[in-house]
This record gives sequence, C-alpha cells and structure tokens, in this order.
Amino acid sequence: MTDQDTFTAYNAATGLPLPGNFAEATAADIDKAVRSAEVAFEWLRECRPQRRGEFLRAVAAKMRLREPEILARCELETGYLPERVRGEFMRATGQLELFAGLAEESVWDVRQFDSGNPDRKPFPQPEMRRRMIPVGPVAVFGACNFPLAISVVGNDFVAAIAVGCPVVVKSHPSHPGTCKLLGEVVDEVVAEMDFPEGTFTLLHGRRPETSVALVQHPGIAAVGFTGSPNGGRALAQACLQRERPIPLFAELGSTNPVFLAPGFLAPGILAPGAVENRLEAIASGFTTSLRFGNGHMCTKPGVVVMLDRQAKAFAEAVVDKMHAGMPMPMLSAGIADAFDQGVAKLADTTGVDELYGPRSARSDGAVPPDDQAASFGPWHRDARWFAVDAITAAEQNLLHCETFGPVSLLIRCTDEEQMLWVAKQFKGSLTATLHVDQEDAAFQARWLPIAERFAGRVIYNGWPTGMEIGSATHHGGPYPASLDGRSTSVGYASLDRFVRPVCYQGWPEKALSRV
Amino acid sequence: MTDQDTFTAYNAATGLPLPGNFAEATAADIDKAVRSAEVAFEWLRECRPQRRGEFLRAVAAKMRLREPEILARCELETGYLPERVRGEFMRATGQLELFAGLAEESVWDVRQFDSGNPDRKPFPQPEMRRRMIPVGPVAVFGACNFPLAISVVGNDFVAAIAVGCPVVVKSHPSHPGTCKLLGEVVDEVVAEMDFPEGTFTLLHGRRPETSVALVQHPGIAAVGFTGSPNGGRALAQACLQRERPIPLFAELGSTNPVFLAPGFLAPGILAPGAVENRLEAIASGFTTSLRFGNGHMCTKPGVVVMLDRQAKAFAEAVVDKMHAGMPMPMLSAGIADAFDQGVAKLADTTGVDELYGPRSARSDGAVPPDDQAASFGPWHRDARWFAVDAITAAEQNLLHCETFGPVSLLIRCTDEEQMLWVAKQFKGSLTATLHVDQEDAAFQARWLPIAERFAGRVIYNGWPTGMEIGSATHHGGPYPASLDGRSTSVGYASLDRFVRPVCYQGWPEKALSRV
Repeated sequence: MTDQDTFTAYNAATGLPLPGNFAEATAADIDKAVRSAEVAFEWLRECRPQRRGEFLRAVAAKMRLREPEILARCELETGYLPERVRGEFMRATGQLELFAGLAEESVWDVRQFDSGNPDRKPFPQPEMRRRMIPVGPVAVFGACNFPLAISVVGNDFVAAIAVGCPVVVKSHPSHPGTCKLLGEVVDEVVAEMDFPEGTFTLLHGRRPETSVALVQHPGIAAVGFTGSPNGGRALAQACLQRERPIPLFAELGSTNPVFLAPGFLAPGILAPGAVENRLEAIASGFTTSLRFGNGHMCTKPGVVVMLDRQAKAFAEAVVDKMHAGMPMPMLSAGIADAFDQGVAKLADTTGVDELYGPRSARSDGAVPPDDQAASFGPWHRDARWFAVDAITAAEQNLLHCETFGPVSLLIRCTDEEQMLWVAKQFKGSLTATLHVDQEDAAFQARWLPIAERFAGRVIYNGWPTGMEIGSATHHGGPYPASLDGRSTSVGYASLDRFVRPVCYQGWPEKALSRV
Repeated sequence: MTDQDTFTAYNAATGLPLPGNFAEATAADIDKAVRSAEVAFEWLRECRPQRRGEFLRAVAAKMRLREPEILARCELETGYLPERVRGEFMRATGQLELFAGLAEESVWDVRQFDSGNPDRKPFPQPEMRRRMIPVGPVAVFGACNFPLAISVVGNDFVAAIAVGCPVVVKSHPSHPGTCKLLGEVVDEVVAEMDFPEGTFTLLHGRRPETSVALVQHPGIAAVGFTGSPNGGRALAQACLQRERPIPLFAELGSTNPVFLAPGFLAPGILAPGAVENRLEAIASGFTTSLRFGNGHMCTKPGVVVMLDRQAKAFAEAVVDKMHAGMPMPMLSAGIADAFDQGVAKLADTTGVDELYGPRSARSDGAVPPDDQAASFGPWHRDARWFAVDAITAAEQNLLHCETFGPVSLLIRCTDEEQMLWVAKQFKGSLTATLHVDQEDAAFQARWLPIAERFAGRVIYNGWPTGMEIGSATHHGGPYPASLDGRSTSVGYASLDRFVRPVCYQGWPEKALSRV
C-alpha cells in the first residue's frame, strides 16, 4: 500500500464516477486508529451506560440534521429508489435510538449470583457473581447492501458502542461517500460530547490486505462482518492466525427458502391448501419480496419449494406481477457481473427453465441478452426467475448457491414427501418460510422440525425480507448464514457479541460497585 | 491409519505398560460413530428433557457401582493420590446429577417474546418468539489432567447430552483404560434406557490426524476441547477449513497470576497489608494450590506478583512448607519432558533465581539434575519455584508461558506501580487472584479493572484451584485461556455452547408446543 493510493465511488445508475477521492487506509492509519481505540476503551468501558446511550441518540439526531445530503449521496451510490433509502435511514436512526435505550438499561448485563456457604466442609463455598464486561475495540465491516443500517452507524456500531467498545469501521468501497458523511456525523458527536477521539474511526479501503491488516492488529478484540462467504472465511482465517485469536461475527449468505404447503389433509383426501386458497396474495408477496431493493437483501427469497401440480398457476400469477417491475441498478459493476454469472449458471443448467427473463424477452419467451436492461444503465438488471425439479436442484447444488440480486429459483416437487426431502437438503439459511393454511396442519407439523434445523428464523405466512429488531430477533443461522449460528448481527442479542462474562469469586459486593 | 494400529497405557508411577490395547480410530470408525450420532440426534432432540436428565443420573449411579474399578485404573494411569482421584470422581458424579437437574429444568432455553401489532403501518408487526435448540452431534476431547470430570462423562458430555446433542468422545491417550471403563458405563445406560445407540460413542486415538478427521466429519456440529494452545489452534483451523465451519470451544492454557497487595494506605503512609497480616496463611494456601494434583491443574497459580521488599519473608515461609511435599508422578513421559523443558527454560534465563528445587538440592542451593525425584519413578518430579524481577519477566515473555506441572514463578516488583504495570502485561488467563486486606483498598480499586480485562474469573482472598460449578461460574477467558473468552467449559453456562437460538416469526403458539 502506498500513501497515495485512492479510489472513487460510482453512480450505480450510470456507472460514472462520483465526486470525491477515498484514500486506501495504510498500515499507519490502521495502527493509529486502533491504538487510539485502545486508549478510548479505558474511558468508554468505565463511563456510565447512560452516557453511551446519549451518544447514540445524538448520532441519530445529527443524522437527521444532515438527512437530505446523506439520502442524496446514498441514492447515487446505490441506485436504490428514494423510498428504499429513506426507509433504511429510518431503520438506522431508529436502531440508534433503540440501542440507546438498551445501553441505558444495560440489557446485556445478565447477572448471576451463587450464594456461598462458609460452613461447607471440607472447604467453605465462596460467593460468586457473574457480570458482563465489554471486550475491547471492535472492527466493523459494513455490508454492500445496507449503507446506512449495516454500515458506519449500523447494527455492529450500535451494539459495540452500547456495551462500551470503541469502533473502527472500514467503509464499503461501493458507497464510501455515504460512509464519509456518516463518519463526519459521528466525529462531530464525539467532539461535541467530549468522548475520546478513538471512540470511533472511519477508514476506507477496497483491498483485501487492508481488511486483513485491520483484523490482525493486536488491539482489535472482535470483528463484526457482513459480506460474502469467501470474504468472511478469509477474515476468519486472519483472525485465527493472530498471536491472540479473536472471534469474527460474520453474516454471510443465504437462499432463504419459502415452502408453499401442499394442502393435503390426509393420504387419499385432497383439500386445497395455502397455494390454492391464497394464490394471488402469495404471488404478490413473493414478487414484492424478491424485487425489494432490487433483490439486494440477505433475506431475499432465493428459493421457492412447492408441488409441481400447483406450480403452473403460481408461476403465471407471479410472472404477471413481475411485469409491473422494471430493471434497476445493481450496486456495483462487480455485483452486476456476479449476478450475470449466477444467472448464466442457472440458465445453462440442463433441466432449468426460465420463468421470467429480461423485459425484451416477454413476448417471444426466448432468453436474449440483457440489452433492454442495459439501455437503462450499464448495471441495471431486471429480475430473473427459474424453475427446476427437486432432484436436479439437489444434484446440481442449486439449493445453496446464493446469487445476490433479483433472481430466484422455483423447485417443483412431485409430492409432499419430496418437499420434505428438499427441506432436509438445506444446510444453513438465515430464514425458512412456510405458507400454510388450516388444511396443511399435517405438513406443517413435519416441516417445522426440519426447517428449524437449518434456519435461524422460521417464518409463518410471511416473507423473509423486512426484519423486526427486537429481543426475539435472530439474524444468523448455520453456515453459510453465519460462521457460528449462535450469534445474531441484528436485534438485542447482537449486544452479546461484544461482551464476555467475568466471574467475581468471594468479592464483597461493595467492591464491585463500579462493575 | 491402519486397522491394526493400537497403543497401550502406562503406569505413571513406574513408567511401565498397563494391561489393555487400544485401537486408533479409523476413518470408518469415525464415520460410523458420527452417522450413528446423526440418527440418534433426531430422537434425542425431540425426547423430553426429563428423559435426558434420567439418563445422566443413571450414568452417575452406574459409575458408583463400578467405582473401585474406575478409581484403581485411574490411579494407575495418572499417578494421582487416591484422595485426588476420589475427589474428582465425586466431582464427576456430582456434575452428572447437577446437569440432570439442569436438563429437567431446560435452564438453557431462555425464551424471548416480542408481541406483535396487527395495526402497525405500513406493515403489521408479527409476533416473534425466540427459543434455543440443540446444534447436533458434538465431538469431545477430554483433558489429560481430569480423566473423570473433563473426559468421557465430564463437563462437555453432561452439557451436550443435557441439551439433546449426541456425543462422540475421543479418549485422552494418557488414560484410555479409565475412558474405556467410563465408556462401558455409558454404553450400558444407553442400552438399558433404550436410548439410540448413537447417543454416545467412545473412540481412542493418539494421532493428530485422528482428531482432525473427527472434527472434519460433516455430521459434527460443534467441538468441546480441553488441551494445549497449539493443539486447540490446530483443531480450530481444521474446524474452519470444513465445507461448513463449526465452532470449537477450547479451553487452552493459563498462568493464573496471584497478586499479593502491598499494604499501602496512601502515598507516604505505610501500613501492613495482606502479606504481612497473613503471611503464614497465604504461604500455606499458595503451596497447597501449587502442589494440588502435582500442579496438573489448568488453574495452578503459575505466577505470584508482589513487592520485592515483602518477597523474602514470603519465600522463606513457602519454602518451609514446600519441604513437606515430595516428588509425584507426572501424567506421562511427554508431560514430564515438557515440564523439564519449561523448568530448564526458566532456570537458564539470566536474572531468574531458584527458590525451591529438587529435594537433593536443599542443602547446597545448587541446581542439580532431578536424580532424587527419578529415584521415586521415571516421571516423578518435585515442585520447582523461581523468582525474577518484573522487567525481566516481561522482556523474556515469562508471564504467559504456562508450564504444566508443579512450577511457579514469583515476580518481584519495586513498588505498587510496577505491580499494576505487570498486571497490564497479562493478555489472557482463566483466573486472576488478589490477596488483600483493609489496608490495601486503594490498590484493590486500581487492580480490579485491570485484572478483569485479562481474566475470566477474578478471585478475592482465595486460590484459583478448586472451582465451584454454578450459575455464576466462568471457566474461560481471553486467549490463551480459551479461544473465545465468551464461552465457559464449566458451569451452567457451558450448556449455551451446544444450543443456538431460533426465532419463530408469526407462528401460533400452539404450533410450537413441541419446541
């Protein structure tokens, strides 16, 4: 890395460079940021949690003062629709204020007390108290797809600051300008509230070695990461190879299968189930969920599993609704390329049919190049929808390959048994969804124990996109949903990533008053 | 690996082979064990937690029926004193019964509920419930030093079975005969209680590649490991390199520093503190803790930090008590060798003084070979105690090098500030201990925030050996105490390692009655 190494951001709608240069963080930048965070940690861990709550609220308030500027830059860098960006802005500010409240209540500090017994033989039993303390400076890598809510001031930031951990953020190279504005907001709050400078540092970078250097700095105590499985695994490797290994909390990839229950009441007796009872509503819900944010969602419904005999009517209803959408920009040239490759892999697989393709393909049903989409902008892509039978899907390993963007795969099953067999093939997913009516009760009872085995969130008659942030939220799951399915990157329990227990044995309670 | 590959166990007191041959597990053995565990998991996760509690109680009861046989073999393989083995037997059976109770109460299943709001705009808010489910088959590697309580039926076993995870144990090669007896006990309970065969499998092995093959079997969902930092890191690497990475919960190494507070009330005013007020009691407690189990404890007090001016009287009191002990067997030839090397490294470091050496060295103060100890048995070693100044200890990296066995290092400090400076040099330890009296209140207030930074358990006027197993127990800490300081291998919270959260979104509560 040289000190002069800079890069620019791009307008996702036009592919043209945007104003501003962003300097790749050097080893010296990283060292300065982390050393400064270590100093800040001494103060931040001891300051009243209420102060940290006030800090998070102040960040939200200052974001609102600069809202138009932030939204405008974010729209340019992402190509998202204004309402999508505005929605994420509200989620990010709401999350800051929610976690301010959690900080004020120190909800993560679940305490345990074991009473002692001075008369126990052969040794007296000491009193023991278990409390939670922050781990130290946290490195944060934001997601490409949530420049406001999983980024500089996003889920990892709010959790780390709330518990008392300073944060060093590496901006995502596809929206460094948005990150820069958010970083200025935080810097101003740090200065105005007289927090130590190292409470927060924003670094830029697009090289893998910059990320590795950050997580391998000895002062970093934990890492929050949202990105690809390959990227996450590489950083996990870097974390393990340190002199002192540290945990990487990584949310990686997911196909988020949606199962449409078949509606059998009992063998030999056929009753209409969810698909037949609510065809239009389910088709509409699916299309909205798939197209939301142009499919740039970790919870995009990438797979639908249903009976072959119900698939035709469902496909017709969905395709009808797909036509109301239009090509939208992908987040970057690289993501557009990856999307094209993922789509080509599906389209080229023997046995895979295209159900919905580029707009120019509507009338004749062929699979032409994406010319029509390209006329909107170089990174614009329309939604794509494919279908395949269950056996081919499993054999060709199509159930686990997440292609980021507006593409989904319908799995046609011969019967209920095959649907459950498909369910058993999934290894890890953020979510699993079941659409079900009264008539599907028997299927539901068999599906749930399978689905909870591979998913972190199991959804009943809903859609995986649009997550609630609460005490019961779990955004994680067996790999590749996350590296360790026990942790969540969203919700109250995300705080638990950045604290660890300490057992105080035999201490008089008043000696622990500061803890 | 060939099918014929076998090994034997050794009598620790004589170094001679013991009866019995143990076959190195083959790839086929591992595959059979894990596939069988996967089948058992389907049943075990769905069975009532009370059944799993009864199972653990039955294992304890059957252990008691075979107690004399188990104790006898364990004494031979470890060379531990009968009371040490008997004490561990009681800890192991007590732990089985304790976790039976925890299973019956499903204490790990801390549930969360977020109420919904059907009237929320623009989207209704679904109800969400978070519950904990078992992760799947767990591979367990027992510790060399706890053949009963951190082994076949030990801490990892009780935690995994309690939550509903089958277990595949690899016995420790230094006590495979003890493991075999315990394995027979569990096998009999499995058969008598009609549990699925794959609930439990015991494998033997002494080759690293056998351990790697076990953790890399696709059916294994998590690993419990107690051993050396190098061994733990190698297995963590193997877990990360799987197609589906899994967590390794590893308890590794620790020097467990003990600080003797200096007794200053305020600058310029000198008052006697803990060392002067309780010299004999502290010297006696230290000697007992160091010699306990011949120093084969992960919580052995490997470092004592105190004022130079108080060290002479303390050393005299300790050496006096050391003489009451005698050489005891190390657990294996390899551990005896490692002990000799660790001791030699200390003895050869410029600036390190020997305070207590082999019995033959008492009169002249020289550092002779361990002839006297060797006359007891080839692996017998007496305790060793060294002293060094704080600067040398830090510069020569003596604070973090755990040498397994009865050796400890006294760090002489010039003043209170240097003692706190030493405290800041520690990076990770299972425990940190402070001996303190009223006069030391100021020191205590400064020491605690430093100590909790590097330790998982902070002890007040006690000793690190002899851990309570309760809800507030934490046996883990920043590396090298464990790989991830958030997890504990002992105590109620050890259950949390083998469950993960699932969020049930929008489900009618009655649909979740089985969960």
